[in-house]
Amino acid sequence: MKLNCDLGESFGLWQNGNDEAIMPYIDLANIACGFHASDPLTMLKTVQLAQKHQVTIGAHPGYPDLLGFGRRSMSYPDDELIAILHYQLGALQAICQSQNTRVSYVKPHGALYNDMMKNPALFACICRAIQQIDPALPLMVQALPEPAPYQQIAGQYGIGLWFEAFADRHYLDSGLLVPRSEANAVLHSSEQVVARCRHLKQHGQLLSINEKPLPLQVDTLCIHGDNPAAPDLVRQLSQVLA
Amino acid sequence: MKLNCDLGESFGLWQNGNDEAIMPYIDLANIACGFHASDPLTMLKTVQLAQKHQVTIGAHPGYPDLLGFGRRSMSYPDDELIAILHYQLGALQAICQSQNTRVSYVKPHGALYNDMMKNPALFACICRAIQQIDPALPLMVQALPEPAPYQQIAGQYGIGLWFEAFADRHYLDSGLLVPRSEANAVLHSSEQVVARCRHLKQHGQLLSINEKPLPLQVDTLCIHGDNPAAPDLVRQLSQVLA
Amino acid sequence: MKLNCDLGESFGLWQNGNDEAIMPYIDLANIACGFHASDPLTMLKTVQLAQKHQVTIGAHPGYPDLLGFGRRSMSYPDDELIAILHYQLGALQAICQSQNTRVSYVKPHGALYNDMMKNPALFACICRAIQQIDPALPLMVQALPEPAPYQQIAGQYGIGLWFEAFADRHYLDSGLLVPRSEANAVLHSSEQVVARCRHLKQHGQLLSINEKPLPLQVDTLCIHGDNPAAPDLVRQLSQVLA
Amino acid sequence: MKLNCDLGESFGLWQNGNDEAIMPYIDLANIACGFHASDPLTMLKTVQLAQKHQVTIGAHPGYPDLLGFGRRSMSYPDDELIAILHYQLGALQAICQSQNTRVSYVKPHGALYNDMMKNPALFACICRAIQQIDPALPLMVQALPEPAPYQQIAGQYGIGLWFEAFADRHYLDSGLLVPRSEANAVLHSSEQVVARCRHLKQHGQLLSINEKPLPLQVDTLCIHGDNPAAPDLVRQLSQVLA
Repeated sequence: MKLNCDLGESFGLWQNGNDEAIMPYIDLANIACGFHASDPLTMLKTVQLAQKHQVTIGAHPGYPDLLGFGRRSMSYPDDELIAILHYQLGALQAICQSQNTRVSYVKPHGALYNDMMKNPALFACICRAIQQIDPALPLMVQALPEPAPYQQIAGQYGIGLWFEAFADRHYLDSGLLVPRSEANAVLHSSEQVVARCRHLKQHGQLLSINEKPLPLQVDTLCIHGDNPAAPDLVRQLSQVLA
Repeated sequence: MKLNCDLGESFGLWQNGNDEAIMPYIDLANIACGFHASDPLTMLKTVQLAQKHQVTIGAHPGYPDLLGFGRRSMSYPDDELIAILHYQLGALQAICQSQNTRVSYVKPHGALYNDMMKNPALFACICRAIQQIDPALPLMVQALPEPAPYQQIAGQYGIGLWFEAFADRHYLDSGLLVPRSEANAVLHSSEQVVARCRHLKQHGQLLSINEKPLPLQVDTLCIHGDNPAAPDLVRQLSQVLA
Repeated sequence: MKLNCDLGESFGLWQNGNDEAIMPYIDLANIACGFHASDPLTMLKTVQLAQKHQVTIGAHPGYPDLLGFGRRSMSYPDDELIAILHYQLGALQAICQSQNTRVSYVKPHGALYNDMMKNPALFACICRAIQQIDPALPLMVQALPEPAPYQQIAGQYGIGLWFEAFADRHYLDSGLLVPRSEANAVLHSSEQVVARCRHLKQHGQLLSINEKPLPLQVDTLCIHGDNPAAPDLVRQLSQVLA
Repeated sequence: MKLNCDLGESFGLWQNGNDEAIMPYIDLANIACGFHASDPLTMLKTVQLAQKHQVTIGAHPGYPDLLGFGRRSMSYPDDELIAILHYQLGALQAICQSQNTRVSYVKPHGALYNDMMKNPALFACICRAIQQIDPALPLMVQALPEPAPYQQIAGQYGIGLWFEAFADRHYLDSGLLVPRSEANAVLHSSEQVVARCRHLKQHGQLLSINEKPLPLQVDTLCIHGDNPAAPDLVRQLSQVLA
């Protein structure tokens, strides 16, 4: 069970997150590509940090909206969206290449991720974008109780999927997330998160809010890196899951 | 003798230049990479246009300054400048890859080009940036009477140089450009430009303003695409040089 | 009957529209404020051009999206949208002040205009933004068969409305626009546009596509400046309406 | 003796500085205007915070370079530089107006500030920009042993100057700053800074590194807000200077 985290989300002199403290404990670093966050030098430093800790690098492309941090939906024709993805992927790939490493997967960011999960045409578009560059790059998506439609589309483009669950979110028995509008959407205590992951490690099952095993294929757990407790949490999780 | 031209310098709905009319007649397209001009969709369309006319594609990276069109010097530490170059190169490379073509050389834009010619440390930096991605990519620079210092630095990084002369600029007998401050810096008539190129084709010599053969190695001639006469001129030149 | 036109939509060296040719013939210049188009120097030059031809200046704020020219909806909380409007309004106001003139009205641009007409909460937000700066500034909106809801909201904020019709668009008998999905949405010939305006001048009535008088209050006619025929058309219209 | 500090330098979700902790203890807030830092909503919140603590608001315009935080020189023709200043000033002024307050002075940021102190033509340009908006707005500049040339230029435009000294920088006996290249350029201990300010309060003299009274007119002391010790230091200084 691999841990993934969005990293490299600083911009110029503005820092975001705590990459130095988190990188040593994760397996997969989703590295921002300059459209919703980051810049060429930040990307270079993040790639170097990932290499130092032997962390696998993924491209984390977003909508071109620094001010909104890529959290606002924006509408694009297919060819423009694909070009936007290629641009970001290629930019990170070249920076990786300069350091003798490479991009190994793709995870869209923020509103682009949410739009992809809601809109099959957009999801297909992203699969096509990856296919045109390198169909061997897996696409990270949300673990869902009914993944078949996504697998079918991805399969048409020869793209593999990695399903991620959110370490700090509660799930309904159905395998859907408890909506953020609910009071208990988020696991607020690190103890809870760690306990749930320990069960996952020992029994191979992620538990719902009612402690039922979830009907989900989970390839990787996502940790949100932008809260002060994240470094400590990710350190504990890496021990539990080792 | 190859013709090169800066193309793909539109931005969003703002058009610049006359790419459709010029592309059929040139050999080398210097394609902007989104920092001083262009955007992902414009890059895609420009790459497709180059392919349609079997034109070799070069990356044309610039300073990150859309408003100033990359014509203002900006100061960067070496590692940041290199990351900025890698970012743009990789972005264009991925868009090329999606169309089954590739970037074949590098020509910096505007102030970055001028700074490179004036500042050996910056020139070395650009050579190093190319070396880290692919030392087989030549770097296009200004043809100079004394190219040895540039060749020496480029050689240290294993980078080949392509020397360009400017089709519409007058040269002193020394091989230096007539400064823009002089009244006769620019060849204003197409006839003059064409006549000079005809001589170049027949005698293998580019002539100075005093009609002396220039002591320059010239691998390619640069045409400025952003004036209304450019499409007609480039058509004529392509016939003369064929 | 006043003619209004969106002007000042260049950006850096990228030109858009034909401001020099259009400005002499219009009454109201909707000047872009740097978020969807324009930049400080372009704004200055556009203000100076408006002054030269004694054209009334309006602020034409948009979403912060140069690449998409403000034509994509973007979602903002109320306080941020209001701050975005104040920012643009103030920027143009200061440039006007430096030239001893002033902003006299407000017309939102592109997707912001469309969102305003569709979404009463957003419309109220824009009225509030204007009220906080100067409630004497009218807001230009689309002429509609049922303007009462807009007038009511604007009235709550003490804001006056100017209703505009589109000179080159056909209207249904109801007063709604023929949708762009219909073949005859746009009046393609200048003769048609001029004839309709001549009727408007002589009889005080704008005619529908079926030549019925429209049940619309029309304070101003909008001309689209970004087609090559615009300068000629606007010259003719200014004579007809004089 | 007033304390001034650069504030409102966050951008979107990226935080910078510690405005909440510093604002209560200063007299003059130099508020960024969106070109080198900040955005409309951040400006609004910073203006509201200044109002809450009855702090006088100054415009803190910079070069348009978010990635470089306005710390890189950029070259502009006079009319464009003036338009850039008007744009930022007007934007902040409108946001102030929406909150029933106003901009009371101007202090350029970063490279623009440094360029202004080095280049009399640029200094004159800034004075002219202010004059065209409101000559009653003072311009904050660095306190110098020979202020006469600056006063003369400012006087030509009817602009008043406020001279600032840097609370945490050592000065030579001449009144010039100890260069940053020197080991003792900066006062590293808060005790030192506080002691020097206490002397200033009691004797009306700012002391040089050799404890000689400085030949400087000092109207305000600048505190750098972007280090963790700043909130504590500014609290102490406000008590000492009260």
